[in-house]
Amino acid sequence: MKMNSIFTFFTPKDKKFQPLFEQAGSNVLKIAEALLVVVTTTDLERRKEAIKEVERLEHVGDDITHTIFIELSKNFITPFDREDIHTLASAIDDIADYIHASAGNIELYQVTNIGDAMVKLAELLVEMCSDLEKAIKELRSFKNIRVIADACVRINSAENQADYVCNLAIARLFEFETNAIELIKQKEVLQTLEIATDKCEDAANVLESILVKNA
Amino acid sequence: MKMNSIFTFFTPKDKKFQPLFEQAGSNVLKIAEALLVVVTTTDLERRKEAIKEVERLEHVGDDITHTIFIELSKNFITPFDREDIHTLASAIDDIADYIHASAGNIELYQVTNIGDAMVKLAELLVEMCSDLEKAIKELRSFKNIRVIADACVRINSAENQADYVCNLAIARLFEFETNAIELIKQKEVLQTLEIATDKCEDAANVLESILVKNA
Amino acid sequence: MKMNSIFTFFTPKDKKFQPLFEQAGSNVLKIAEALLVVVTTTDLERRKEAIKEVERLEHVGDDITHTIFIELSKNFITPFDREDIHTLASAIDDIADYIHASAGNIELYQVTNIGDAMVKLAELLVEMCSDLEKAIKELRSFKNIRVIADACVRINSAENQADYVCNLAIARLFEFETNAIELIKQKEVLQTLEIATDKCEDAANVLESILVKNA
Repeated sequence: MKMNSIFTFFTPKDKKFQPLFEQAGSNVLKIAEALLVVVTTTDLERRKEAIKEVERLEHVGDDITHTIFIELSKNFITPFDREDIHTLASAIDDIADYIHASAGNIELYQVTNIGDAMVKLAELLVEMCSDLEKAIKELRSFKNIRVIADACVRINSAENQADYVCNLAIARLFEFETNAIELIKQKEVLQTLEIATDKCEDAANVLESILVKNA
Repeated sequence: MKMNSIFTFFTPKDKKFQPLFEQAGSNVLKIAEALLVVVTTTDLERRKEAIKEVERLEHVGDDITHTIFIELSKNFITPFDREDIHTLASAIDDIADYIHASAGNIELYQVTNIGDAMVKLAELLVEMCSDLEKAIKELRSFKNIRVIADACVRINSAENQADYVCNLAIARLFEFETNAIELIKQKEVLQTLEIATDKCEDAANVLESILVKNA
Repeated sequence: MKMNSIFTFFTPKDKKFQPLFEQAGSNVLKIAEALLVVVTTTDLERRKEAIKEVERLEHVGDDITHTIFIELSKNFITPFDREDIHTLASAIDDIADYIHASAGNIELYQVTNIGDAMVKLAELLVEMCSDLEKAIKELRSFKNIRVIADACVRINSAENQADYVCNLAIARLFEFETNAIELIKQKEVLQTLEIATDKCEDAANVLESILVKNA
């Protein structure tokens, strides 16, 4: 017996949370894409603009998260468990925050040496956020839950890759970088990107939990 | 419909949580004030005493948090949503922890060069904790919710300022500090202070959520 | 009145969560023991194997945590509050993660200088995880709750010791270590170990909360 099932016939077709989560999913994908521009462009002016775009989108994401939390406070009846809505919204918000922090650190620390590992991590983040966006859209109909399950598997695998890429890059820093201040800069940007991939996995875990509960 | 409303007529006037939260609010303000002494005094003996005071008050705060959690375990009926009580108590505890950690690091790392940014962050923390304390007192009567709403707005704005101050100071460190070990010390104290301001914002967000639910 | 009590007569003798938590408890103790080998052996080959063992056990722990979360999604009725099950499983998972991270960093950063503080922290972690394992076993019968209470007290005291050991070691680093890169390595391993002890305390706090609710 699930508590929610008692209330199921009261639940109107959700018109509040689903659109907000779709906005959040599409926004976090845009942030990841802007980050990829930050780390792949060699045009410093374009990098600066892309960092500004990351920042702008992070504010948009903040507003979406805030609206989800306010709706959660106002509504007793929700399409999914309240805790899942809260955790999913928080995880997406965290992805945006850590992408924002890593782009911000690139500017703040004036990181000029952007290596392959940072590019690879940004590419993985684009893939993961694209999977997240697709999975979130599927929550609307729940007709093709395979899409959600597959996205979760791919996100988990990408997170493992991100771990590997980040660890290898940091091991190399400790082996070859003799300038401690440069090492600090590089290490912090890499680790912040890696935490962003962890948060993608957190989001995937909530989606999996929603699947299990509603399958 | 809210689940809680079913039980409203069972709820005795809360005599447990409100006094505990008021103690927690007043204690965290005292900690912030002691931190301000730590970073503004030039008398090393007085700084040492102020660090000890931060430590003592952090223990007092731990006891208050612990009592709130025990009461939460013992009572099914609470004046606000259980999750809000838990999150608010945790956020206030976190503010105290991070202020304690930054004061502790100043001693541990023997940071002697306390710049304007650290002082400004400590001042912002005093402002934010003072607003928190006021807002928490208003929870008692819920008569003047404007006070709570205004405090939340001011805390959010102070957090933005803290971000800016911290980022600027760290950018300057990377630009001008050539001693890596000194850079590590300064950066960690600044970032710990900044996290303390984030936790003030978390506390304000819970207060806002309580407002929305009970307005 | 407790919500759960309404459902008590529905609750079958728990056959799902208790065995999973016992597995998690026994696994995290094995991880701590493997970590102790990592930091005490002087045989580099044996250290490498012990690090691999930590990694292997961390994956085992991940699977246990995952199973607990899936069971939590599938079952409305649980032996303890859902939030306590979630928090306890997460805390044990975090202990494993941070032990894994510290062993991983020793390898990744090629830390060769493993001092007394790291050994002491690993010993404390073995003690704490051993207490956790004992306390978790007692949840099965709830006959001898003194065992749980005592374990929680010892874990809290060990966490205080860990704090002290870690802080002293870091203070010494800042006083005597002139190589900034070596300082970064040592500091990060020490702090990661210390966070693992914090997570043991989090687990003990949930156990205490379960005690209070079910006493």
